[in-house]
Amino acid sequence: MCIATHHHLRNGDALLGALVREIDALGLRDIRIASSSVHPVHAELIPYIKKGVISVFECGVNGLIGELASKGEISTPIIVRSHGGRARSIITGEVKIDAAFIAAPCCDRFGNMNGYYGPSACGSLGYAHTDAEYAAKVIAVTDNLSNGAISPVAISQSLVDYVVEVESLGDPQKIVSTTTRVTRDPVGLQIANYAAQVIEASGLLCDGFSFQTGAGGISLAVAEKVRNLMAERQIKGSFGCGGITGYFVDMLEEGLFESLYDVQCFDLKAVDSIGRNLHHQELSADAYANPFNAGAMVNRLDAVILGATEVDVNFNANVNTESNGYLLHNTGGHCDTAAGAKLSIITAPLLRGRLPIIRDAVTTVSTPGHTVDVIVTERGIAVNDHCRELKEELIRRKLPVKEIEDLRREACHMTGEPRPVELMDEVIALIEYRDGSIIDAVRRVKE
Amino acid sequence: MCIATHHHLRNGDALLGALVREIDALGLRDIRIASSSVHPVHAELIPYIKKGVISVFECGVNGLIGELASKGEISTPIIVRSHGGRARSIITGEVKIDAAFIAAPCCDRFGNMNGYYGPSACGSLGYAHTDAEYAAKVIAVTDNLSNGAISPVAISQSLVDYVVEVESLGDPQKIVSTTTRVTRDPVGLQIANYAAQVIEASGLLCDGFSFQTGAGGISLAVAEKVRNLMAERQIKGSFGCGGITGYFVDMLEEGLFESLYDVQCFDLKAVDSIGRNLHHQELSADAYANPFNAGAMVNRLDAVILGATEVDVNFNANVNTESNGYLLHNTGGHCDTAAGAKLSIITAPLLRGRLPIIRDAVTTVSTPGHTVDVIVTERGIAVNDHCRELKEELIRRKLPVKEIEDLRREACHMTGEPRPVELMDEVIALIEYRDGSIIDAVRRVKE
Repeated sequence: MCIATHHHLRNGDALLGALVREIDALGLRDIRIASSSVHPVHAELIPYIKKGVISVFECGVNGLIGELASKGEISTPIIVRSHGGRARSIITGEVKIDAAFIAAPCCDRFGNMNGYYGPSACGSLGYAHTDAEYAAKVIAVTDNLSNGAISPVAISQSLVDYVVEVESLGDPQKIVSTTTRVTRDPVGLQIANYAAQVIEASGLLCDGFSFQTGAGGISLAVAEKVRNLMAERQIKGSFGCGGITGYFVDMLEEGLFESLYDVQCFDLKAVDSIGRNLHHQELSADAYANPFNAGAMVNRLDAVILGATEVDVNFNANVNTESNGYLLHNTGGHCDTAAGAKLSIITAPLLRGRLPIIRDAVTTVSTPGHTVDVIVTERGIAVNDHCRELKEELIRRKLPVKEIEDLRREACHMTGEPRPVELMDEVIALIEYRDGSIIDAVRRVKE
Repeated sequence: MCIATHHHLRNGDALLGALVREIDALGLRDIRIASSSVHPVHAELIPYIKKGVISVFECGVNGLIGELASKGEISTPIIVRSHGGRARSIITGEVKIDAAFIAAPCCDRFGNMNGYYGPSACGSLGYAHTDAEYAAKVIAVTDNLSNGAISPVAISQSLVDYVVEVESLGDPQKIVSTTTRVTRDPVGLQIANYAAQVIEASGLLCDGFSFQTGAGGISLAVAEKVRNLMAERQIKGSFGCGGITGYFVDMLEEGLFESLYDVQCFDLKAVDSIGRNLHHQELSADAYANPFNAGAMVNRLDAVILGATEVDVNFNANVNTESNGYLLHNTGGHCDTAAGAKLSIITAPLLRGRLPIIRDAVTTVSTPGHTVDVIVTERGIAVNDHCRELKEELIRRKLPVKEIEDLRREACHMTGEPRPVELMDEVIALIEYRDGSIIDAVRRVKE
């Protein structure tokens, strides 16, 4: 059997662990997990992997599970999918979910639910919509059961087979798992400064501008700079989308965006906003990023700011493994937004610790290079060949444009050529691209 | 081919007529119309029926088309479905819509839409959701195209294949096609008074009460009485649903309901409300009334107030034909709510003109008697046999409870036995019950 949960409570989720304990107690084995993501808190699943309760992860994993798989200490196939790819795989029937368990922070006795109110409020339930529509059985699980008639209804009772009450769905304080403040690190600020200038130079920053960033310190610094530019020049943007932070809520409330389309709230300010603001809209992962529907929202993005653990001289980006080869991260919307947005910018320091970030070839291809437009480091900006006009404009503006090979060399000059990670033949995970093709395999690391 | 539109602009709809004219101009013939309903304004389709452009109505019809079919002047099979039955028929694949044309009063260039804002604002697009999800091609048609990013999103761009701009979708003033004021007619007021007392006697009028009425003068008079009772007794209801009027908006805003679930706005006050109030929620016809999903909203209704053109001594109700046999009305949510609600009340005057409303057998069974609980007339209240406790309580409260056969006789005593309408063998329409079974056939009237 295949079960799914969603990850809107991120590292505060208590449901997946509780489910797997119950599944084990029932004596069930060989369960496939098709959750929208798995977080470090789910290290609690490791004994159940070893015991054979869990046999496959039909989803990417963040944290220890991937690390142990990389080391060969657990043997569980992992199929990593992007947010859009996951929605596609469910809708096409590639992944058949037998039972979707939806953590519902606000739920009535008939299964109408939203994530906006209650002790476990997490905001958008965007990743769970496709599950609710396509799973054979849909179970709403709530710690805030209403006897009345809740509204807004994010997921309708007409899709819900069972409603189950539990004591707690988890801890929404742990939604915020990374820094959600603008970086104060001078390297990060330099990168953000360049990235904002790239957006400015692109000509996209005008009325109708649409934008997505993550929740990391550099992303937020770029958002802050873009926000200031928009306010100064009285630019009226159209929308922010994807994972939403308080910064984007401010931009909505300042009139810099008409709408927010929210697949996942990255902080509690976003959670508060979505429950009171008609123009802060919940967005399903399907509508957000599925490449095979009639038109996903990512296709409308002007600019997206992305991170990476590595990039390479062909602009391929790795967000799944670290340079040591360990599978530590899920893809999220990385490859979806890179493919959809008019301008996809990867921001990264040239070095992390003593490792150069720009390599001859990334350890794992998460996002193919042809969908990445610009790589911004503190030491220079590399522009992909298909963006000649942008490159010329950046040069005209005297920004430090460099060939990506030169940036790679510059980094290696400081650190020496990095020792290639030694990998075995054994495949521990597949990286499925958003369209369903396999774009890379993650192999076991030789210890 | 099969096309569909929705009827939220009711008698103000300009889209279906324009489409059929274009279809004719393209030389297409033998088109099936699977709209959510057809209104008197669509008498403009009659030449195209005669010409063979339109061959079948996969939906009920209001007005002249049914009348002409009843007289044998046009020969076009008509399959009448309730709102829930229509959603079911589309989802199960019984009705396959090739192209759904969705009148979108507020729409962006990518197809995100709502009905809340703009010159043709009609409020909820509840009947169009299933079309958007299941039609082979989905075309948003708008007279209010936004270059930006609209919100709220009632129907997502990810379901929309084309966006077409037109000058006008129609006239929202004509949404209000019947009286939408509380009746001042003493007969109507007497009926409303009794109906409210039946609700009171049922024991359902307590905290958590849920309620639906139509938009007619008697329904609104009942709503007003219920509202006063709730306010006096500080009863906090849970929800109003179905077609929503300004009366229900007032009840929401006075705190008498927690939420409104709106499949169709019956007046412009409701249209205004749904575009600004988070707790006035759009509801799809599927979630509203489909008998085959995981739990439709009608199943949660405590009480519904319904009308009828005729009822019979077995509590069957006719809403489709008049006593002259003409097919003049669509079923709407009549049989869906009667089946779902704990207490379904039909209000009707004992006589209309010189015709008794209670018959030995209705001309057409729209809603089967076993789903009807009480029939309220100005001369007495008939209670169905399966509601013995309610009947006893009404008698205890000294309400004028009568056997339905006695009420029938009383009416006939005043008017004489009505002459049965003379019908031919030829079937001009089928009445499909919400579950897909055929519960009656409408026959051609002998002129």
